[in-house]
Amino acid sequence: MTLAAQIHSMAQDAKAAARQLAVLPTPVKNQVLAAIAEGLREQQAVIQAENHKDIALAQQQGHPAAFIDRLTLSDKVITSMIQGLQEVILLPDPVGAVTSMWRRPNGLLVGRQRIPLGVIGFIYESRPNVTVDAAALCFKSGNAVILKGGKEAIHSNLVLSRIMADALDAAGAPPAAVQVIPTTEREAVVELLKLDELIDIVIPRGGEGLIRFVAENSRIPVLKHYKGVCHILVDAQADLDMAETVCFNAKVQRPGVCNAMETLLIHEDVAPRFIPRMFARFREAKVELRGCPRTCELDPQVKPASDSDWGYEFLDLILAVKIVPDLEAALAHIARYGSYHTEAIITENYTRAQRFLNAVDSSVVLVNASTRFNDGGELGLGAEIGINTSKLHAFGPMSLEELTTTKFIVYGSGQIRQ
Amino acid sequence: MTLAAQIHSMAQDAKAAARQLAVLPTPVKNQVLAAIAEGLREQQAVIQAENHKDIALAQQQGHPAAFIDRLTLSDKVITSMIQGLQEVILLPDPVGAVTSMWRRPNGLLVGRQRIPLGVIGFIYESRPNVTVDAAALCFKSGNAVILKGGKEAIHSNLVLSRIMADALDAAGAPPAAVQVIPTTEREAVVELLKLDELIDIVIPRGGEGLIRFVAENSRIPVLKHYKGVCHILVDAQADLDMAETVCFNAKVQRPGVCNAMETLLIHEDVAPRFIPRMFARFREAKVELRGCPRTCELDPQVKPASDSDWGYEFLDLILAVKIVPDLEAALAHIARYGSYHTEAIITENYTRAQRFLNAVDSSVVLVNASTRFNDGGELGLGAEIGINTSKLHAFGPMSLEELTTTKFIVYGSGQIRQ
Repeated sequence: MTLAAQIHSMAQDAKAAARQLAVLPTPVKNQVLAAIAEGLREQQAVIQAENHKDIALAQQQGHPAAFIDRLTLSDKVITSMIQGLQEVILLPDPVGAVTSMWRRPNGLLVGRQRIPLGVIGFIYESRPNVTVDAAALCFKSGNAVILKGGKEAIHSNLVLSRIMADALDAAGAPPAAVQVIPTTEREAVVELLKLDELIDIVIPRGGEGLIRFVAENSRIPVLKHYKGVCHILVDAQADLDMAETVCFNAKVQRPGVCNAMETLLIHEDVAPRFIPRMFARFREAKVELRGCPRTCELDPQVKPASDSDWGYEFLDLILAVKIVPDLEAALAHIARYGSYHTEAIITENYTRAQRFLNAVDSSVVLVNASTRFNDGGELGLGAEIGINTSKLHAFGPMSLEELTTTKFIVYGSGQIRQ
Repeated sequence: MTLAAQIHSMAQDAKAAARQLAVLPTPVKNQVLAAIAEGLREQQAVIQAENHKDIALAQQQGHPAAFIDRLTLSDKVITSMIQGLQEVILLPDPVGAVTSMWRRPNGLLVGRQRIPLGVIGFIYESRPNVTVDAAALCFKSGNAVILKGGKEAIHSNLVLSRIMADALDAAGAPPAAVQVIPTTEREAVVELLKLDELIDIVIPRGGEGLIRFVAENSRIPVLKHYKGVCHILVDAQADLDMAETVCFNAKVQRPGVCNAMETLLIHEDVAPRFIPRMFARFREAKVELRGCPRTCELDPQVKPASDSDWGYEFLDLILAVKIVPDLEAALAHIARYGSYHTEAIITENYTRAQRFLNAVDSSVVLVNASTRFNDGGELGLGAEIGINTSKLHAFGPMSLEELTTTKFIVYGSGQIRQ
């Protein structure tokens, strides 16, 4: 069988499985998830033996320590995978809920009912724990999933795949509900992305290169975000203690993630008071500052920002800083350089808080809170499979509900159209 | 300026306009819609003079009478455009509504707020009245729209475009909120479909050829349906009077539309009783019947169906008929040949009604009502811009709410992530 035929056959099996999953009772779904957790616990040694094959190969190939770290299924990582499954078991099943229902003048009772999307293609890089996390969310929301992880994690992904298939099989659920593509060839992704008749959506997770590759090659709709260039505006009427705490958290707590702050905008009225204390704090934490000319004037130690620093996702302890004359200038900067991801204002001014919330075109807009809260768990959606910064279908973090859609159900009594 | 540059510039203007539209107050939007209606009324003679240029050219080119009819802006069509605008004025503005809000344990108040999608590309064929209908829905939902109608309607579309621009301008709204591409070249569509950084979604309306062309050339997500192959199942426990009335309505009332019935499935237990009365009624209305072998056995006048008749969208007074042994066989037939559009069951059996509603994977699933109700107006959504049979974003008819998305708004008091 050619690779193309193999991927096509997997997608056909997934589509057939999706029809069964759409009507699978919640207790059966939870039983499968519990059985996967049990399998991970019982077969921890087997999993780690396979994982060691991947690690050994990655070490031979000279991958850096951070890469090996992400690849490693340590005891701690396996425990957190098990906890993740237990959390998904506790989340309410979104499928079947009638979100609203109304009666038409002709007596028709019309409702919207949640249904799964169908088949999801999930394409990611080399963290094998993501294999189980993503599969659990797709499965609980009634979707079949085809997973393609990084080639360096193939042994780990295949043993996890076998444990999940066993759990599905034991509960009488279709094993094709969760499939891992058993090859490392990138061509498999290209073939998958052609199957718009069989696969409903594709979610890529990883670096900008992977995401652009998927978006450019896909005939299937892609839910994705390329990058998070998050801004915080410290307004003229900000509580400066709060501003300092929130900005420090947004930049320093975990600088390598998409919801970390990349550009700090400061209202000119507070800049002379705010900059000394904030920058001292940043310097303690070894944050490199790159400022606009006015920022550099106020603090000559700051390196001048280049044009390319605005709208840049550093993913590191580097911060661009700009002084703005007013809220509208800040909004214009965000409109030009933002990434539709996450923006926050720190202010005690009611009108400007409301104006910022209304005018900023980002998936999460916050007043007086850290950008780091753009996360499905933190916002109260439960676990998260990704963040979408295109506005179609789900804008922002995606959890179980975002992996569903609604159909119309109509109860009639013989109505015809006049 | 090249065509590509011209389309790019229009899209940039649309994106700039969309930012203003997103915060435009409802009364201003309604004022613009009323001014467009007034413009149509006042300039009816001018509109019809331009429309006659299109008609004369189409007649010279030998287009059939039905084509000329769709192209004609008669007094009646203009009156219905004005009524359409008045209906959109009365529809509630979806933008700004907070659809839900909840408090997190850390005190964050998190809500979902409706926002426009941004810029919509609308590509359609030669009914110039659609130009105003579609523009009104996009505008009321806060979206900028770029319209590309059929080349045969270009004079009509341009005069309508001018009337809409004048109305926008007079109210202080950005004229680039509604733009008609002022050229007949198909290359303009190809250029438009490349602009995924500027245009958020594309909605094509027309024949399957146009829709496939758009879907295959677009880098922007497309909301579409290729065809409607609607099925009705007459169950063993159907009220046969109701079945006859509903099936007749679904096939005959307007056979050329996407929500007309194309295949009738009949449970074997009622086939001998139902077929004679139903087929007599269909024959009176000159419906051509194409049946499975068992149908032909029961009524030898019926022409045998060929394989290609199953799942075929006749859009005409032709009906495929199949006798099925049970509900599950009907569901399997629909799963294989359906188009995710509209399916109905006629039954008095409670369990089978519920099973049908749950198991059928279509945008609208009905019990004891005609498939012709798959329509935004009939289901109570207000006017409709199209029907989506892909599950992403909006499954089924799309009206104002479906032209929006939600962002997260967060009210904090200094929260940081631990």
